[in-house]
Amino acid sequence: MEKELDKRMMQAALSQAQLAEAAGEVPIGAVVACGERIIATGYNMTETLNDPTAHAEMIAMTAACDAIGGKYLNDCTLYVSVEPCPMCAGAMCWAQLGRLVYGAPDPKRGYSLFRDEAGRDLLHPKTEVVAEVMKEECSALVSNFFKSRR
Amino acid sequence: MEKELDKRMMQAALSQAQLAEAAGEVPIGAVVACGERIIATGYNMTETLNDPTAHAEMIAMTAACDAIGGKYLNDCTLYVSVEPCPMCAGAMCWAQLGRLVYGAPDPKRGYSLFRDEAGRDLLHPKTEVVAEVMKEECSALVSNFFKSRR
Repeated sequence: MEKELDKRMMQAALSQAQLAEAAGEVPIGAVVACGERIIATGYNMTETLNDPTAHAEMIAMTAACDAIGGKYLNDCTLYVSVEPCPMCAGAMCWAQLGRLVYGAPDPKRGYSLFRDEAGRDLLHPKTEVVAEVMKEECSALVSNFFKSRR
Repeated sequence: MEKELDKRMMQAALSQAQLAEAAGEVPIGAVVACGERIIATGYNMTETLNDPTAHAEMIAMTAACDAIGGKYLNDCTLYVSVEPCPMCAGAMCWAQLGRLVYGAPDPKRGYSLFRDEAGRDLLHPKTEVVAEVMKEECSALVSNFFKSRR
């Protein structure tokens, strides 16, 4: 059952990514859900806002905290079409995100490249991670975007 | 000469930290400067805004990009009273920050705890780093804040 819900939510994150694409942005999208309810959405707006911090995840997390009136997202799942970067993973750590589900891995800029001396990654130790949900669709959206720009 | 300028700018970051303290926030402050000119300021507003991403550095960088109308801060120095966390360091990487000057080290949450397999930290490879400028003043402000809360 969880797998079906994860796919449905990732589809919503992909719809956000398409909004980014339509705005000429690298197409990455995110949604934050509490169970079956989407409480916040976001898509990459770094060009539109001239702001290197305006990633899909950051926008979605800020909106989610606003929606629930608190700084912590322990009971929430963040769905994002591409593996988060260290900035976004650091934000997820502060928010004590309950669960992270992402689509395409990012072997160049992904948060999972970094570890501390004890081997811990950048996320909160309690955050559950599910990778590669709808990986092909998520990955194709980004690689087609870059192909079309060359 | 650079040392004097760095101290003067760190004093400005400390003034921002005091604004955070007055608002009941963990007292951390930041300024972004181009040479001798401060183009943006920020202080920790995570409680006020109910937003775990509202760190001094994030606010100052977003404001700096707005001020210069671009996503890159190659020609800027960011001064912050405490060593940045991974989220903020990740944002500095995207902004290709020219220079980072910080006060107190943060041995528990600092960005410098994390490395990739090649030993690289979270900052952009071109970012110059100066640590421990006015370390005692910066550190005392935070430790006094936590003492007063116990």
